[in-house]
Amino acid sequence: MPSNEPDDPYGTAEVWDAGLLNPVWAGSAAEAATGDAAIARHMLDAEAALTRAQAVVGLAPASAAQAVTAAAADRARYDVRDLALRARRGGNPVIPLVADLTAAVAERDPAAAPYVHRGATSQDIWDTAVMLTASRALEPAISALDRTIGTLAALAAEHRDTPMAGRTLTQHAVPITFGLKVAGWRSLLIGARRRLASVRSSLPVQLGGAAGTLAAFHAFDRSGDPEIGVRLIAAYAAETGLAEPALPWHTLRAPVADLAGALAFTTGALGKLAADVLVLSRTEVGEVAEGEGGGSSAMAHKSNPVRALLVATAARQAPALAAMLYQSLAAEDERPAGAWHAEWQPLREALRLAGGAAEAAAAMAGGLRIDTERMRDNLAMTGGLIATERLTVALSDLIGRDEATKALARAARAVPAAGRDLARTLAEDPAVPLPEETLRELSDPAGHLGSAGQLVDRELAEEA
Amino acid sequence: MPSNEPDDPYGTAEVWDAGLLNPVWAGSAAEAATGDAAIARHMLDAEAALTRAQAVVGLAPASAAQAVTAAAADRARYDVRDLALRARRGGNPVIPLVADLTAAVAERDPAAAPYVHRGATSQDIWDTAVMLTASRALEPAISALDRTIGTLAALAAEHRDTPMAGRTLTQHAVPITFGLKVAGWRSLLIGARRRLASVRSSLPVQLGGAAGTLAAFHAFDRSGDPEIGVRLIAAYAAETGLAEPALPWHTLRAPVADLAGALAFTTGALGKLAADVLVLSRTEVGEVAEGEGGGSSAMAHKSNPVRALLVATAARQAPALAAMLYQSLAAEDERPAGAWHAEWQPLREALRLAGGAAEAAAAMAGGLRIDTERMRDNLAMTGGLIATERLTVALSDLIGRDEATKALARAARAVPAAGRDLARTLAEDPAVPLPEETLRELSDPAGHLGSAGQLVDRELAEEA
Amino acid sequence: MPSNEPDDPYGTAEVWDAGLLNPVWAGSAAEAATGDAAIARHMLDAEAALTRAQAVVGLAPASAAQAVTAAAADRARYDVRDLALRARRGGNPVIPLVADLTAAVAERDPAAAPYVHRGATSQDIWDTAVMLTASRALEPAISALDRTIGTLAALAAEHRDTPMAGRTLTQHAVPITFGLKVAGWRSLLIGARRRLASVRSSLPVQLGGAAGTLAAFHAFDRSGDPEIGVRLIAAYAAETGLAEPALPWHTLRAPVADLAGALAFTTGALGKLAADVLVLSRTEVGEVAEGEGGGSSAMAHKSNPVRALLVATAARQAPALAAMLYQSLAAEDERPAGAWHAEWQPLREALRLAGGAAEAAAAMAGGLRIDTERMRDNLAMTGGLIATERLTVALSDLIGRDEATKALARAARAVPAAGRDLARTLAEDPAVPLPEETLRELSDPAGHLGSAGQLVDRELAEEA
Amino acid sequence: MPSNEPDDPYGTAEVWDAGLLNPVWAGSAAEAATGDAAIARHMLDAEAALTRAQAVVGLAPASAAQAVTAAAADRARYDVRDLALRARRGGNPVIPLVADLTAAVAERDPAAAPYVHRGATSQDIWDTAVMLTASRALEPAISALDRTIGTLAALAAEHRDTPMAGRTLTQHAVPITFGLKVAGWRSLLIGARRRLASVRSSLPVQLGGAAGTLAAFHAFDRSGDPEIGVRLIAAYAAETGLAEPALPWHTLRAPVADLAGALAFTTGALGKLAADVLVLSRTEVGEVAEGEGGGSSAMAHKSNPVRALLVATAARQAPALAAMLYQSLAAEDERPAGAWHAEWQPLREALRLAGGAAEAAAAMAGGLRIDTERMRDNLAMTGGLIATERLTVALSDLIGRDEATKALARAARAVPAAGRDLARTLAEDPAVPLPEETLRELSDPAGHLGSAGQLVDRELAEEA
Repeated sequence: MPSNEPDDPYGTAEVWDAGLLNPVWAGSAAEAATGDAAIARHMLDAEAALTRAQAVVGLAPASAAQAVTAAAADRARYDVRDLALRARRGGNPVIPLVADLTAAVAERDPAAAPYVHRGATSQDIWDTAVMLTASRALEPAISALDRTIGTLAALAAEHRDTPMAGRTLTQHAVPITFGLKVAGWRSLLIGARRRLASVRSSLPVQLGGAAGTLAAFHAFDRSGDPEIGVRLIAAYAAETGLAEPALPWHTLRAPVADLAGALAFTTGALGKLAADVLVLSRTEVGEVAEGEGGGSSAMAHKSNPVRALLVATAARQAPALAAMLYQSLAAEDERPAGAWHAEWQPLREALRLAGGAAEAAAAMAGGLRIDTERMRDNLAMTGGLIATERLTVALSDLIGRDEATKALARAARAVPAAGRDLARTLAEDPAVPLPEETLRELSDPAGHLGSAGQLVDRELAEEA
Repeated sequence: MPSNEPDDPYGTAEVWDAGLLNPVWAGSAAEAATGDAAIARHMLDAEAALTRAQAVVGLAPASAAQAVTAAAADRARYDVRDLALRARRGGNPVIPLVADLTAAVAERDPAAAPYVHRGATSQDIWDTAVMLTASRALEPAISALDRTIGTLAALAAEHRDTPMAGRTLTQHAVPITFGLKVAGWRSLLIGARRRLASVRSSLPVQLGGAAGTLAAFHAFDRSGDPEIGVRLIAAYAAETGLAEPALPWHTLRAPVADLAGALAFTTGALGKLAADVLVLSRTEVGEVAEGEGGGSSAMAHKSNPVRALLVATAARQAPALAAMLYQSLAAEDERPAGAWHAEWQPLREALRLAGGAAEAAAAMAGGLRIDTERMRDNLAMTGGLIATERLTVALSDLIGRDEATKALARAARAVPAAGRDLARTLAEDPAVPLPEETLRELSDPAGHLGSAGQLVDRELAEEA
Repeated sequence: MPSNEPDDPYGTAEVWDAGLLNPVWAGSAAEAATGDAAIARHMLDAEAALTRAQAVVGLAPASAAQAVTAAAADRARYDVRDLALRARRGGNPVIPLVADLTAAVAERDPAAAPYVHRGATSQDIWDTAVMLTASRALEPAISALDRTIGTLAALAAEHRDTPMAGRTLTQHAVPITFGLKVAGWRSLLIGARRRLASVRSSLPVQLGGAAGTLAAFHAFDRSGDPEIGVRLIAAYAAETGLAEPALPWHTLRAPVADLAGALAFTTGALGKLAADVLVLSRTEVGEVAEGEGGGSSAMAHKSNPVRALLVATAARQAPALAAMLYQSLAAEDERPAGAWHAEWQPLREALRLAGGAAEAAAAMAGGLRIDTERMRDNLAMTGGLIATERLTVALSDLIGRDEATKALARAARAVPAAGRDLARTLAEDPAVPLPEETLRELSDPAGHLGSAGQLVDRELAEEA
Repeated sequence: MPSNEPDDPYGTAEVWDAGLLNPVWAGSAAEAATGDAAIARHMLDAEAALTRAQAVVGLAPASAAQAVTAAAADRARYDVRDLALRARRGGNPVIPLVADLTAAVAERDPAAAPYVHRGATSQDIWDTAVMLTASRALEPAISALDRTIGTLAALAAEHRDTPMAGRTLTQHAVPITFGLKVAGWRSLLIGARRRLASVRSSLPVQLGGAAGTLAAFHAFDRSGDPEIGVRLIAAYAAETGLAEPALPWHTLRAPVADLAGALAFTTGALGKLAADVLVLSRTEVGEVAEGEGGGSSAMAHKSNPVRALLVATAARQAPALAAMLYQSLAAEDERPAGAWHAEWQPLREALRLAGGAAEAAAAMAGGLRIDTERMRDNLAMTGGLIATERLTVALSDLIGRDEATKALARAARAVPAAGRDLARTLAEDPAVPLPEETLRELSDPAGHLGSAGQLVDRELAEEA
């Protein structure tokens, strides 16, 4: 396809990006669904759908709809690099695409050429293409979440009663179960899945013409139907499979803001899993490992939690992208001078980060190796101090709350220093009227798990 | 109330903030609902509700519930500055509050003192207090949105057919109606209102104990009821009026993320109104003015759109605050070392900006002065060129599309230079076979409004 | 080059990005300097430089340095898409690149193969490559700023005394000169240029080995020189042309933070120009136009300020990218699990936005059309009220400050309504003891420009 | 002081904030330096300085300068809450402050009243007050950094040769020294200190009048001195102690952007310390503890790293605040409709977070307890695998690189499973021709510290 622009000064191979900086989404379905080629295709789909919709409401002949659809389907004619370069002149890629599509249609059916893009504005096509892109990109993301939700359900059930240290502010707090931790992960992912599915089902088509009044379509309409504009929106929605909006939304950016929120939520929810896996993988903690950790050529002993790391990387970037998208809500006029264009890259990147992180998390969750022995060992690190709540209650009943608290404080000071355990230390305290065996049972972490099991059951009863 | 901390080194009057830097929310209902005093009160309410809930499920005597409730209600005992200073030691204000509340309860009923905060963790109380605060703060925000939605409905109906210039990328594009612009504003605010109301109705109570297992409550429970933990959550939700969560959400921050999204949406939606009012208020545009503009001592002619400006100020800040809150989703462990604490100030500020902006926008919308004459004059600035779409169609029918396009391009070049209008210029073009009168009618902006009226009707049919 | 990874499931053409979503930098020098191909080249350059540096300090034979340099120069061997896909396994692209480079070296000189990447960690190579990339990318950005600074100097000098309306909070305030506005733009760009040049001159090489101690180099060193590590850093810096850091900076990210700040500053400074051009281009203002505006197929009269728009688009995105980069300062351990990887894409994008915006702004500034007549007309819109400061002083001398203020307030109310000018209105006021001619002279905006000229001179005296 | 506004509807005690949500800066010098009271005082200082500067250049009588200075010094007359409420009308607090100050001056010397704020615009006073505030707030922040830098120098020297595990991507990598880690912290803080000091020394006074031309001062000047404006800027700078800007910077926001960058850098640098302390404090790691950890009422064994946590909290918020401030660079016109006002709260919060974090970090660093025994124990966790680099080199010399690598891989698999150490395992490998003693020495972490000592020395030679 010939370009009207000056030659690409640096050469195509030089500038094209292949995900070298983005291992979290390189090679993912999200990358493919949102690539420049996909977006260009969706622009062509949007143009073809618009002409077909015009045929449906009587604004174009069926032959024009056929010609535009056929010309749009001839993907090889359209060169995304060329479109990208020519986009600079008018500020968006729809303008050069319309020129190329018109030429392609004219070759097939000259009479159909005037019907290309007729009555539309660039934003009608671009926004529709972006919504189609989002719809395609969200599908594999949701599916990856589903896989992870399933994996986590099994894992939570399996470890419903596996005790481990609960940690708060970096310190051992009281025992929890690994099942409860996993159930929490699952509940967040179910939340993410619902939000993505909800947003996906309401992605709207865009159609308003130059300033949102659909006036050009009325001008072209010989029938004088006052409803021609709103009928065309409905027909266009039907042709694209997108939802029908109440109003053109050129500067009413709820759909983009909702995507931003759902994607930031999803990436953050996956980030919670990753944050926990990273802590639990630490050499000193060692309770969890990725099935297939990333090795190091120089260090044979290393097994890096690479997938958790990549997910964490996504979670660090998505919130600021969402901020850019929320910022674009405050768009002046009928098309703003900056806010709209500034959405494109952040939205694509947010889709990729969420989708790539969802895939990486599914692989990570599917391969997690759980070391329940390390969990038990770590739980014992504080010599029983981690489970003093129950002991406090039992002792308080016998010697009063103040004395019980004092005895435990004495023991807490002695235990780490002496390298001994809490039960023996307390048993030797004359103020404590219980035998070591009873004290040991009362300080057993596995006996102080509270509602953990009930909470796991409750969460697993939740439909995905 | 005596403080255990060293004296406040700088003096209270020196450090307290009164909104001097935040005119968008100073004096607003959102400010009052979210002030330190309100949050301290909600912490006390949360503590009292928790003891009452424990009484309901049999973990505390009714007398303890009464004593804690009474002591918590004696607001004058609690000094927020003192709490703030003592919060530094443990990292949160619940720890000193519990000390003060326990002392207050002990004065009334020594036997009740051990029931203060029993089994809970600081985060149980803080998160519950924050949810109560959000609930109270959202109420006036929603009510302010309702007022604005009503005002805009009337305004959109009144100006359903008032033509004005549609503007894209700073340039006149094609005519729109002021009613359509206002209907768009209204649709965004309806969306904001729905999102706020939805989030508000699902704000959950927080209860998990030290690490989310509710284990301490089990330790205190003589009945050995395995459901005691989940029953207590339900009772606590009932006492506070908040929703009952499926799991403790110490590190499952969906409620905060959803608030972040809804508040960023709302502030951004209000920001769209403000952005338009600011453009339309420009001295050179002059189509809209705030009823009570901010004057200038030095410049008698100035009438600044101050309320729109303040709303715009909020819209510039809320997205980055939302980013901070989304970032906290990726919280490690059972309580993270930073992510939770970093939510507090951004969430309060987001509530204030949204609430303050909603109030300011209601005042702005209620007082807008519309200058339809300036709208008409501005519409005429391009000498009719703004409405050439219809003319192009009519001419194309007569002389073909190419000739029509050429004639209009000639006229477009001639009109601004000659200071004349399009109809006369075209009438003098021998290639144009239409009389000036017809041309004038075809280039009348008021005749090229497309679906504007239908779209306004459609939007106004939408329930708020 | 064969890949060890599963085949690219979606096909290369499908996923590669060509700038379709980024018209502000598509086709720019910044894009080419920062493309995946360029970064891959810089990784190869870094590897080759490291082996040469090892040869300099005696850790490798000269023949190995030659072989690695030659193999690294054979660019066609390395496939960036393949590297990107294989990067997922270990989390970074250096690992597969080292494998490919080692194979290439082995073909030339098997004895040299062990010297590839010897003693280094992936981050040594990646960070060095990124600094080389930044250095290359900043060069054309600085040069574009220089061109704009030159253009603006001429423009400010030409319009040193051209009066126009000063605007505050959207309203006419008092007169300024266009030269003063342009001088302000220039001063911001000089500031941006200085910051970029300063950062560029101190971009450091990275070298620390696995955890920043350079221990492997000591292990390989037969001489037992305790200074071998720091000598190698110096030699590596010399080979790459980058600065020598005091310490390895794997988790001391000052260089990246400084880049973030300088790029956000630059994009924001360019954004100020764009914001002004966008306002001044509005149809109703019309004081400035881009030489080659972006047209619209449907609307012959439109001339969109496309370059200003694209610059504005960049300015809306750069701050959030800077936030991501500043956030990565808080990097735990000797290599963090997320913070480092999360820098890559935001830093590249920030370089591209700043560089692309600098080029677009240079083109915009070079082609600006200034309409001094519109400036004069707009200045007259308030009938002289814009310049009442001087009048107030003169009248106060004659009739006292209170009476003068009252007279001007009466006139301010009368002028817009009567469509008349201030001088005549005041002349008819019996309280005003001055003839119309004097009043007209006193209310002439061109006579109330204060220090505008001096400030322009002062700014132009500033070296670029 | 009577207010012209409707009464504060919620009551002062209700709305004032005392830092309850901000334990990182509650009670800090940064809080006091930036409180509403301090800012109000700086506004009064700015007004007084401006009148004195006018007296210096002959625009006001000395008696007026005295009267304004005296009235401004009577701090008790000015009520910040009242100013905050009245600020809403015009959008900024300077307008009501000028009214109150004028009344106060008139009581003392009626002839001096017209000289209050004469010729100035609100932004002249506000920006100057903000720069004074920043200057005062940075002083204790720099001083806290100095204290920490000193503490860290001693700590790095003391632990120059203390071996500990280097950790990358959560896994043990190779040994480092604690001294090297601390030296890295110090180098970041020296960088932060330099940036803060550099910004502080160039904080400029603001003076431009209504639109930056200083025109009103020319109007008031009877001498007709064309340099009166720039002379007045110089005099104003001298009176305030701030720097003299080349141009009024109402919309040239370099000073604010530079503050943003330096504060984000500082908070991030402190965040690196905190991130490391949080990891090293983990129960399972235990190498470092805060001298005075935050306790937990329910869990006697807990010693939370509260100060590190608070610093981390600041580091999570500052980048997004910096983004808001960088965004305000793109400010349209001579005073923008939003960008300026949106700076106020983020800048104050950034000053507080940086200052509060600097104080908390000084306290944290001063009280760190280092457990070198735990460092040694953790280093031994991988049974010597952490230091295989040196062993690989020695073995390669004897049996070739391939055989050496294979032997080590075998050992790496065997060591963790057998719970044995690397030296013994290798000694039993027939392929390894070295006695256990030699192998043990070669795998001693303390013998594989590379340049750590040299790097510490190099860093400590750096002036603070």
